[in-house]
Amino acid sequence: MRIARFSKGDGVAFGVVEEGEQVIAHVAGHPFGGVEFTGERYPLAEVRLVAPMLPSKIIAIGKNYADHAREMGGEPPAEPVVFLKPSTSVVGPGEPVAYPEKLSQRVDYEGELAVVIGRLCRDVPAERAHDVIFGYTCANDVTARDLQSRDGQWSRAKGFDTFCPLGPWIETSLDPADLALTTTLNGELRQSARTSQLLHDVPALIAYVSAVMTLLPGDVVLTGTPAGVGPMSVGDEVSVGIEGIGTLTNRVISRD
Amino acid sequence: MRIARFSKGDGVAFGVVEEGEQVIAHVAGHPFGGVEFTGERYPLAEVRLVAPMLPSKIIAIGKNYADHAREMGGEPPAEPVVFLKPSTSVVGPGEPVAYPEKLSQRVDYEGELAVVIGRLCRDVPAERAHDVIFGYTCANDVTARDLQSRDGQWSRAKGFDTFCPLGPWIETSLDPADLALTTTLNGELRQSARTSQLLHDVPALIAYVSAVMTLLPGDVVLTGTPAGVGPMSVGDEVSVGIEGIGTLTNRVISRD
Repeated sequence: MRIARFSKGDGVAFGVVEEGEQVIAHVAGHPFGGVEFTGERYPLAEVRLVAPMLPSKIIAIGKNYADHAREMGGEPPAEPVVFLKPSTSVVGPGEPVAYPEKLSQRVDYEGELAVVIGRLCRDVPAERAHDVIFGYTCANDVTARDLQSRDGQWSRAKGFDTFCPLGPWIETSLDPADLALTTTLNGELRQSARTSQLLHDVPALIAYVSAVMTLLPGDVVLTGTPAGVGPMSVGDEVSVGIEGIGTLTNRVISRD
Repeated sequence: MRIARFSKGDGVAFGVVEEGEQVIAHVAGHPFGGVEFTGERYPLAEVRLVAPMLPSKIIAIGKNYADHAREMGGEPPAEPVVFLKPSTSVVGPGEPVAYPEKLSQRVDYEGELAVVIGRLCRDVPAERAHDVIFGYTCANDVTARDLQSRDGQWSRAKGFDTFCPLGPWIETSLDPADLALTTTLNGELRQSARTSQLLHDVPALIAYVSAVMTLLPGDVVLTGTPAGVGPMSVGDEVSVGIEGIGTLTNRVISRD
């Protein structure tokens, strides 16, 4: 099932994108614990999709593909590298990424598989991780690469408003073990990998993170980006596509 | 004015702790934009104070006192070091800090002045920072020091559940420029400093952080810890006291 959030008129609501992606069926309330339909259905072209979830926190994993760790100048670490992005960094499909030109001269895309948590949980064993997962979406872990190197800590470089595009929707029926992931910049292929190349797979990451912090419904875990990261410029269009989910596209505008 | 959150019976509400700290006056709804009283007042001894705010995000600053930067083995950085703690790490006064003994063998206290944001804001100039500040409280930026060194990124080491005690309340009428801050462990003085020693003062931090990310009402900025950090053990009682605010006390228990 493809769960989206959409804006129509004054309101924002959850909806289910039906087969063929032409229609969205309005969901009453939130979709955790079971989807209930209001009965209203709209042509997808007549609504605006927004970020499919507003997470209370975004836990991101660094250097989780060996080829990306190497392109950053190091070997992959033995354990996952955990950092946080603020909830204020989230934008949806089609919403602009704002380039903070006064503060950074190098802003990169990082296409990633995002895991959306479905229930409050802590200390989840890897073999039970799927019980707490609501679904999967595409993410772009946008990064001011120059600030990342300068700061040491990554939260500022990865924490700007609009630096966490999510979408276009959450696919709830998907095996994340071996999905093709691609990132294109202005239509040119820049990243191409499979999630089977993740050094720490989705169940391992859920176990690792939930051993530290309680996860809440809607929280998002970004699983890391493969090789091929690179800079974006104002006016560029970046797309992250994942097999079985769909494609998240955003354009870069100037923030200032 | 001292704004607290308290639990009584089934409910949690905001309240104003009155002069003499004997009585708490129930506040209707939330206190942003003006306090409205319900008229109900309770003896403070008959309620349980909880964390005075549930922030959407906690932005923390590293190495913001020169003597602490040096005790950690380096010189203070030219710019503030920004990292994030998850909202799930917040606990209130008197609530336990849970020592994750399976994952860490070295958990430290870090007493800090916390700034609570009062209104949605972005790109706040330092000279207007006080307009967006709701008030100040005490914080303990609890840190698994061994994981902090090992990970490089600090979010896991500082992100465990219960690793962000806040309280006992928010003082809304206070000049943060030169306040005495002390941390005691089992009654023994371990940290003693004045906020005038902050390398980047409160207005500068609000300007720095809000140039990156939108701040929301209730968000918390931790301003950094002075020298004297050190380990805690299960059974220890740690108190962070700040002149003009009060004292935040928590006991350490085993998580496992």
